[in-house]
Amino acid sequence: MPKKLSIVVVEAEPERAALIEASLREAGDFDIAVISETAGLARRISERNPDMVLIDMANPSRDMLEEMALASGPLERPVAMFVDREDEGMTKAAIDAGVSAYVVAGLRSDRIKPILDAAVARFHMIHRMRAELVATKRALEERKVIDRAKGLLMKARGIDEDAAYALLRKTAMDQGKRVAEVAQALVTTAGLLG
Amino acid sequence: MPKKLSIVVVEAEPERAALIEASLREAGDFDIAVISETAGLARRISERNPDMVLIDMANPSRDMLEEMALASGPLERPVAMFVDREDEGMTKAAIDAGVSAYVVAGLRSDRIKPILDAAVARFHMIHRMRAELVATKRALEERKVIDRAKGLLMKARGIDEDAAYALLRKTAMDQGKRVAEVAQALVTTAGLLG
Repeated sequence: MPKKLSIVVVEAEPERAALIEASLREAGDFDIAVISETAGLARRISERNPDMVLIDMANPSRDMLEEMALASGPLERPVAMFVDREDEGMTKAAIDAGVSAYVVAGLRSDRIKPILDAAVARFHMIHRMRAELVATKRALEERKVIDRAKGLLMKARGIDEDAAYALLRKTAMDQGKRVAEVAQALVTTAGLLG
Repeated sequence: MPKKLSIVVVEAEPERAALIEASLREAGDFDIAVISETAGLARRISERNPDMVLIDMANPSRDMLEEMALASGPLERPVAMFVDREDEGMTKAAIDAGVSAYVVAGLRSDRIKPILDAAVARFHMIHRMRAELVATKRALEERKVIDRAKGLLMKARGIDEDAAYALLRKTAMDQGKRVAEVAQALVTTAGLLG
């Protein structure tokens, strides 16, 4: 049997919290925890490490909205945010902060499941893009560092590019490290030695 | 006065189309065009080049959903899709196809404005990420090509790395091209000549 999806619901008002819990129980078999205290929210959520966070705020200020979005860990898990009042700037702020679903006046039990599904799909889509971006940036940085290290070796030892790369690779293999790590150490050390 | 936001509404049923148009007119001052014919949809939409596309389908098949999402140009403009029936796999397919907002059973006039705002914000957020990814990938590819070109020059002319790069850069300046273009031409030529 697959593990139940765990959801943390952030809701200050007990009556609304009960309503949301009932809606979720109607929508699926979830493991639900309600947090009503927003002090220390980031710690409370990261301790529970849920599969998803659902935040309901009647009428947040922009600062509060950004604080809550950040505290809920939108890079680690889907975050669905429900508010009562439409405000174009707030919508943009929430989405830029990484919220996977931002819903105005839509917290009805028959609509909660599709919204959670969309939040999960959106989270994974953006997560894949972000991972690709991080990997590509890292490859570019590593290539730059390896180039600089090759240049240093070519000058210091009077060897050609292929020999310089072979030397970096041999050192990496001998030390059980990656070529980029050896290159970075060389560049750093050369900088220190002037 | 700023230009009105133009919206293309894709809707086969005339009654629903009229309802959507009325909802949009209530929500804001838009320039609205309705397309009821899905044959040649991609061409029809790209001819109009709207600021946004709104697609309403009661109960699409997955093939139809993906076809419509693609035809609406989700990389060029925000696309909001409304369907009647919840289906987790369809939600994922639509979002992966690039749809900026995917809404189940939510086409009500008081909810349309926040959904359009969210679609626009989402589109811009993903557009920025995608542009950054494209630029980083290109920088990495160019660096690889420039490295290969430098290596070719170093071997052919018996010069060092700095001299090889200086030669590439001088040639690029003389020809009014980018260094990466000259490097690519060199690599291609060397490949052709074996």
